[in-house]
Amino acid sequence: MTTGMSLKLTIRLYCGDQIAMGPGKADLLDAIRACGSISGAGRAMGMSYRRAWLLVDTMNRCWKEPLVATAPGSAHGGGARLTGMGEKILSHYRSLQTSLDMAASCPDRAALAQAMRDEPKTSQKARV
Amino acid sequence: MTTGMSLKLTIRLYCGDQIAMGPGKADLLDAIRACGSISGAGRAMGMSYRRAWLLVDTMNRCWKEPLVATAPGSAHGGGARLTGMGEKILSHYRSLQTSLDMAASCPDRAALAQAMRDEPKTSQKARV
Repeated sequence: MTTGMSLKLTIRLYCGDQIAMGPGKADLLDAIRACGSISGAGRAMGMSYRRAWLLVDTMNRCWKEPLVATAPGSAHGGGARLTGMGEKILSHYRSLQTSLDMAASCPDRAALAQAMRDEPKTSQKARV
Repeated sequence: MTTGMSLKLTIRLYCGDQIAMGPGKADLLDAIRACGSISGAGRAMGMSYRRAWLLVDTMNRCWKEPLVATAPGSAHGGGARLTGMGEKILSHYRSLQTSLDMAASCPDRAALAQAMRDEPKTSQKARV
């Protein structure tokens, strides 16, 4: 059982109003690298092919070069791989996450952790 | 029109599986301070009284002391104010946000910004 404070940092990079990179898209890139296809990566992450394809499409439209290259051929079964740009963007995104996680180890965090209960008190009113 | 990269950082502090503080709850605390009531703060933020009350209830159960004190009396119209603990937690949370925003101004961010298009390319397939 987890007690005390945990801190979750989410970094989203926007291109206009579209999310060019975020936690889900970064995980999808990892899965595409591991699975070698968009459909396999989607399955591994419990998302539909359509959803995975849309996330890849958004990424490929937001950066100066595509992050994912797909092999032409069969619609759903074709292979996919990260391009050099894909590897580069993913690497900088992960590195940014690490830097911010480290920066979050500051006195403010310690003060917040100290003021938090080990676990939430039970609500007095179950329903309002 | 906004062009190029924007970065959005979200910090959520968990107490067990409950979000003890995050962007919405911090804004609600600001609104309670400004409006002097939970109902007024909810209205100002476009949320129901029930929703605002539940967010306050969660906060009050996750920290060692309540963040919001409500005046006894009328159910929906009673006044509410931030406690000393509420002011302290909000201040540390905002300060943590500022530290992380500053930490995000790093070479990784610059490299990412450089690689992003000014705006997304139009999708080749409008619908898949």
